[in-house]
Amino acid sequence: MKLASLKAGRDGRLVVVSRDLTRATQAAAVAPTLQAALDDWPRAAPRLAEIAERLEAGLIPSFRFREHECASPLPRAYQWADGSAYVNHVALVRKARGVEMPPSFWSDPLIYQGGSDGFLGPRDPIPFLDEKFGLDLEAEVAVVVDDVPLGVDARSARAHIALVMLANDVTLRGLTAGELAKGFGFFQSKPASAFSPVAVTPDELGAAWDGGRLSAPLLSFVNGAPLGRPDAGVDMTFDFGGLIAHAARTRALCAGAIIGSGTVSNRAADGGPGLPIADGGVGYSCLAEQRVVESLLGGAARTRFLLPGDRIRIEMRDAAGHSIFGAIEQEVVAATEI
Amino acid sequence: MKLASLKAGRDGRLVVVSRDLTRATQAAAVAPTLQAALDDWPRAAPRLAEIAERLEAGLIPSFRFREHECASPLPRAYQWADGSAYVNHVALVRKARGVEMPPSFWSDPLIYQGGSDGFLGPRDPIPFLDEKFGLDLEAEVAVVVDDVPLGVDARSARAHIALVMLANDVTLRGLTAGELAKGFGFFQSKPASAFSPVAVTPDELGAAWDGGRLSAPLLSFVNGAPLGRPDAGVDMTFDFGGLIAHAARTRALCAGAIIGSGTVSNRAADGGPGLPIADGGVGYSCLAEQRVVESLLGGAARTRFLLPGDRIRIEMRDAAGHSIFGAIEQEVVAATEI
Repeated sequence: MKLASLKAGRDGRLVVVSRDLTRATQAAAVAPTLQAALDDWPRAAPRLAEIAERLEAGLIPSFRFREHECASPLPRAYQWADGSAYVNHVALVRKARGVEMPPSFWSDPLIYQGGSDGFLGPRDPIPFLDEKFGLDLEAEVAVVVDDVPLGVDARSARAHIALVMLANDVTLRGLTAGELAKGFGFFQSKPASAFSPVAVTPDELGAAWDGGRLSAPLLSFVNGAPLGRPDAGVDMTFDFGGLIAHAARTRALCAGAIIGSGTVSNRAADGGPGLPIADGGVGYSCLAEQRVVESLLGGAARTRFLLPGDRIRIEMRDAAGHSIFGAIEQEVVAATEI
Repeated sequence: MKLASLKAGRDGRLVVVSRDLTRATQAAAVAPTLQAALDDWPRAAPRLAEIAERLEAGLIPSFRFREHECASPLPRAYQWADGSAYVNHVALVRKARGVEMPPSFWSDPLIYQGGSDGFLGPRDPIPFLDEKFGLDLEAEVAVVVDDVPLGVDARSARAHIALVMLANDVTLRGLTAGELAKGFGFFQSKPASAFSPVAVTPDELGAAWDGGRLSAPLLSFVNGAPLGRPDAGVDMTFDFGGLIAHAARTRALCAGAIIGSGTVSNRAADGGPGLPIADGGVGYSCLAEQRVVESLLGGAARTRFLLPGDRIRIEMRDAAGHSIFGAIEQEVVAATEI
């Protein structure tokens, strides 16, 4: 099934969305909000699935579903833990910062605790504060879990994945190096993220979902031009089971916790950094990576970070070309004008 | 007024508590949970204050308030951002890890994003996982804010402090160095924190509260023996206004976000590290700091980290000797036995 939260109050209003994203129907009889459904997932999920079936069959009243009316599926959450499962991305970005990447990064997952008290909606503007902050997108896959017990192993963790969605993990590159040098991780350099209009249960993903990885190109665009289409199932060093197990090593995770994949990134066939789309590669899921490759190939980064007026788009399509999660489409707008 | 959440469901049941912590009364007519009250704070706060007045005057039905029936005031929260405002503590702990502390730490606040999807109750056991993890307490002061706008300045930020409470920021010392070296901040080394049974509005604190700092000794005990009584108003390099402003520099904070002071720590009169209580000092709010000072003074740390069966207690008393927030009292218990 596919679920969304229409904008309403702090936590949105839960609706069930048709597979083709054209129709939606109320879910209030089951739960007023997605968090409420997740808090009671074993009871709520089958009832929501029944509504979804009746919606597909045209057996219940429905209304036109409009992606621009959506908040993020969880407009705020109790946890946003974002991994860096595509170690290739980490290696490239570190190279750009002139920092060595320890070899342990290939075996020990990297996860940072993100802010989760307020997410941007999938069509909300991205606040622009200062050109020096180097505003960047990061296109990712993210999962929402039900209650995960302390110490779960990577294989068992897969069963706790309730929903899958896309993310734009907005990043301020100009602030990351300073914050990481302080040692306490990201804070100011990671303002509010945005998620896709729709979150889907793993069973909707068919063969593209192997239980821990989603295999399909993740499409990113800047001002209409393709930035990247790396396959999210390729070069994902740690699958979602592994990321969840890492997060739950010393504490249980509450239903509704969101775990991110980190920026999706594919290597080139020769094992080196992938090429820009303009040069025949699959491109990148963030501008920083494109800039690193430009530096490596041509001596200098040519791509600039985002400025007011720029528009980004993140989407994923199924084998038939249909949008799975709806599109994250955001314009960069001066914070003073929002 | 003083507020608490009795254990019930995932988010507790909000009650108003008498100033002397002996009686409580339902607050459901205003809001079922503390988060619900904070979501609507401008409307809820005066109504809760009115209930508190009537409770003090004995004008409404009440029942015996028992601290051990409490969850943390927010059993889960949308944000837990913990500062390191007592830079003295940071300097000492870094010294112990053999890492230099940059001088900028005295002017640029250090805050890490903590996990907030599930807090321990003030009398809940602390799960013990592995002796190698080096289980430690950290006694802190924490505030809960209402909605904080993006870019708030340190002075205006003070007006957004809705509640004050105490915290035990449970820390796994054996995991901190490895995680900080990875650069993404704490994750596994910061399992669930616990907060005091009661959260109080700043006006309850009288002269001890200057709008940004709480001046009173923070009492910590391990197995009944005093560990520390540093004054939370002394050596707090950044006040709560400064910490909130730092957290809100690039994003708004949602009502109910919790901001921690970091481990409370006082220097000795000569500017050096404070002495253990046994040597006439004010002691420490965590074992790590005591161990560092033991190493500095005697060449080796003698104090061990926490083991199953150990009990910790964190409390603060007003000028008349009465407990302000109730006590955090936790026993360390093997995780497999919880």
